[in-house]
Amino acid sequence: MIKIVLLRHGQSVWNLENRFTGWTDVDMSDKGLQEAREAGQILKANGYTFDVAYTSVLKRAIRTLWIILHEMDLAWVPVYKTWHLNERHYGALQGLNKDETIKKYGEEQVHIWRRSTNVRPPALTKDDPRYEVSDPRYKYLKEGEFPLTECLEDTGKRVLTYWHEEIVPVLKKGEKVIISSHGNTIRSLVKYFDNLSDDGVVTLNIPTSIPLVYELDDNLKPIRHYYLSMDGEVPEGEIPKHITLS
Amino acid sequence: MIKIVLLRHGQSVWNLENRFTGWTDVDMSDKGLQEAREAGQILKANGYTFDVAYTSVLKRAIRTLWIILHEMDLAWVPVYKTWHLNERHYGALQGLNKDETIKKYGEEQVHIWRRSTNVRPPALTKDDPRYEVSDPRYKYLKEGEFPLTECLEDTGKRVLTYWHEEIVPVLKKGEKVIISSHGNTIRSLVKYFDNLSDDGVVTLNIPTSIPLVYELDDNLKPIRHYYLSMDGEVPEGEIPKHITLS
Repeated sequence: MIKIVLLRHGQSVWNLENRFTGWTDVDMSDKGLQEAREAGQILKANGYTFDVAYTSVLKRAIRTLWIILHEMDLAWVPVYKTWHLNERHYGALQGLNKDETIKKYGEEQVHIWRRSTNVRPPALTKDDPRYEVSDPRYKYLKEGEFPLTECLEDTGKRVLTYWHEEIVPVLKKGEKVIISSHGNTIRSLVKYFDNLSDDGVVTLNIPTSIPLVYELDDNLKPIRHYYLSMDGEVPEGEIPKHITLS
Repeated sequence: MIKIVLLRHGQSVWNLENRFTGWTDVDMSDKGLQEAREAGQILKANGYTFDVAYTSVLKRAIRTLWIILHEMDLAWVPVYKTWHLNERHYGALQGLNKDETIKKYGEEQVHIWRRSTNVRPPALTKDDPRYEVSDPRYKYLKEGEFPLTECLEDTGKRVLTYWHEEIVPVLKKGEKVIISSHGNTIRSLVKYFDNLSDDGVVTLNIPTSIPLVYELDDNLKPIRHYYLSMDGEVPEGEIPKHITLS
């Protein structure tokens, strides 16, 4: 039986400021750093270990992973960083305050952008400074791969390409895997694992920095899943809140 | 012209306690963490950037690198961790206090172990708990590759194998490289670059967490080298001390 751990990064400063983040490389808040330490302590307390780790090229997911590996005394574990695991690209909404965006475009429109699976927010133009195609971290993206905006389906496609091409072969070798990533990246994986309908995925909320374990059979079909706390598995249906560890 | 940055990790708790460390995976001291932050600030102030980073599988070198990449806003840079860049294996001396070892074996003997290039300290036996061959981080070592003790020449051989096989091809592609590693790993590289005699290398001391830049020509022959400070190149012959940054 294969176990894989999925983790949404600890709180970022833009989560805190209620702004659309997407591919903007914002840092973690102090609360987020503490959440990451707690995630590491939870995984350690539950006896988890890892052979390999995957994350995005955004610092909030990378730092969350570094902190977890440090807490678990697993700094030596190989870490692969890929744009395929970046957050959903939020187009021209990136950087805007969510409340102000609602005032400007109306609550219904913003709800559709946030919670539909196939509607893209307004696209960046290629002269927008937020179109960071020349950032060296993206030099391996092929022509046209750098997104101007994404719907959740777009995000899912690139996440699942990486899943099948890079992560599945490693899981089949028996290696223990953690993925430190973003809300919509993990929603995309959960939608795929559990074959969720579009309606199912739009109501799915992933808490920050709580380890989500998927148990998979030898054919990588999901058996069951659960969140972890210091006391072990969280009973089904209870989305955990953050616990304060001494 | 190629520039490569070599860095000895920030102070560890066993540097502080004056104990032989070798492959023992001791953590950094608070001073070491501060040294690492300063190294990152120095590299940033001098306009350096990196495409790829190499380090050992020991946390004092890995954490030093993580801190540097964070300070430089380069968390996304790919990091390769390898046992080839581990500190010299110190055999049965690992964990012993240096002063007590001198009392036990005599000053001359300890000086020979520390400063000769081809004399190995007493070897570990295979039933010694310090013989960590079953640690998962070493699962890719082939039979017989896990050392029981090393002289500096032994360390140099495995460091240079990795240098030629893995790092040189990357430098030839024009990628900018940092190596965060250990005193004897860096001494081995410096001996190779500058074709130092055995006498030359035994008197070579590498300060912790000060960036050492080697400029190499297109055939990877060294042109010159220097340490970096917040004010740029350190004049030749002056081994820098730590500066306290505000």
